[in-house]
Amino acid sequence: MILINGEARSEISAMDRGLAYGDGIFRTFPARQGQPLSWRRHYAKLAHDAGVLKLAMPEADVLESEVRAVCKDHGACAVKIVLTRGAGPRGYRYAGDERPTRIVSAGPLPAEAIENRSRGVKVRLCSLRLAAQPALAGVKHLNRLENVLARAEWQDPQIAEGILCDDQGHVISGTMTNIFIAVDGALATPGLDRCGVAGVTRERVMQAAEPNGISCMVTTLSWTDVQGADEVFLVNSLAGAWPVRDLNGEARVPGAMTRAVQQWLDVEDDA
Amino acid sequence: MILINGEARSEISAMDRGLAYGDGIFRTFPARQGQPLSWRRHYAKLAHDAGVLKLAMPEADVLESEVRAVCKDHGACAVKIVLTRGAGPRGYRYAGDERPTRIVSAGPLPAEAIENRSRGVKVRLCSLRLAAQPALAGVKHLNRLENVLARAEWQDPQIAEGILCDDQGHVISGTMTNIFIAVDGALATPGLDRCGVAGVTRERVMQAAEPNGISCMVTTLSWTDVQGADEVFLVNSLAGAWPVRDLNGEARVPGAMTRAVQQWLDVEDDA
Repeated sequence: MILINGEARSEISAMDRGLAYGDGIFRTFPARQGQPLSWRRHYAKLAHDAGVLKLAMPEADVLESEVRAVCKDHGACAVKIVLTRGAGPRGYRYAGDERPTRIVSAGPLPAEAIENRSRGVKVRLCSLRLAAQPALAGVKHLNRLENVLARAEWQDPQIAEGILCDDQGHVISGTMTNIFIAVDGALATPGLDRCGVAGVTRERVMQAAEPNGISCMVTTLSWTDVQGADEVFLVNSLAGAWPVRDLNGEARVPGAMTRAVQQWLDVEDDA
Repeated sequence: MILINGEARSEISAMDRGLAYGDGIFRTFPARQGQPLSWRRHYAKLAHDAGVLKLAMPEADVLESEVRAVCKDHGACAVKIVLTRGAGPRGYRYAGDERPTRIVSAGPLPAEAIENRSRGVKVRLCSLRLAAQPALAGVKHLNRLENVLARAEWQDPQIAEGILCDDQGHVISGTMTNIFIAVDGALATPGLDRCGVAGVTRERVMQAAEPNGISCMVTTLSWTDVQGADEVFLVNSLAGAWPVRDLNGEARVPGAMTRAVQQWLDVEDDA
């Protein structure tokens, strides 16, 4: 089921700026029994990203009712929201009075999103380097060709994710996940002020660390830091936390810290 | 008039990867009396860019007939071709057997595209810096948020274009044009192996220089180089060559070299 500006439809204008320029943002997150999980966080993140691009944001209750409508007939599903600047004439300039396009849809929750939590994942290091664009860093916008190119680097279905470095060789994220390492009982995750997407689940882990007595540092990570870590795990809203059990061919043991983080994420999130 | 995969339609699937990820490419060029100008070059550039993204390319005769169909009732018009990877399931991965979406449309040729050739243009220096992504540099893909952000830096309708530098402070292009400078009777234009779009009109100018006895160098240009040049002009397929008459507030005199380049571009192009 797809709702486009609240109507059950499956198509958008070919003149939409979301298509022409990737002029928009999106979110993907799970729902259970018709209830979107961490909804307030996802709305807040969408609003933040809309602010960066100066997109008009739909009212919270309108958007929430559309989200609930698309997932009401599913037990568990993946909800996707796309918000674009809407249709406009040719040219990069926008007038500011465009009518945004919002696309709310639900699809199946991939089985491996859950299964990988217990069995862990095999990951590889991608050769594509993320470009540094501070004006867009952290935002989940529709300009995702880097992710598409990186994901096209491997075909092996046993490999669940690829790790991306930036132009300076620092580790930033997976193609669709954020990355954490555990070293000596503390967590660390890369800063995302030059590139990458500052996801909601990354934020949840960072915020849950302190009340659980664990320090979590946002820092610069090299590939050597990741290789030398006690544990490595990957997070996103659908995946939760995936322990890495094979890092570019090197066997790893999913550990206690990753299991603890999974428990933090299992706690109902009303934030 | 819009043709989508050959059919007169105005909408595309909300699941198109062109919308979801900007997973596609485009071209914009003029037609006169139903004849697309520099068609072979535009097809070749589209095919080149499709190769970079591994998009299936429509047959030349199919695409050309669609281009002629959309512009046949116009005296002069701007044709736009968008080619995406087509609709697909959620996720960055593509299978390789997606059915591409091609969108061919015609719209009005903006009057200022022609008028600016004689009167020259006022341009500003943008503060946004282009990110360096060698894997996508030169390609006219649908990830154009940098151009949208840069174009949003000014509202003054007297300013026709903004100049963009990369992360190292080198001048790369305008938001929708390529840039040339003339110094001591020779031309120079920035290399585009880190960012920017290697346009068809830039290529035409570079190729026309030698037979016209003018050297044209692809090089690194600083803003100081541009400020110190004898002439500065901007090119794209709709604009031809626009002389810069005001460079970030400093008056400039459109000169003989720019006028010569305009004459080169007026020659019918069968390449």
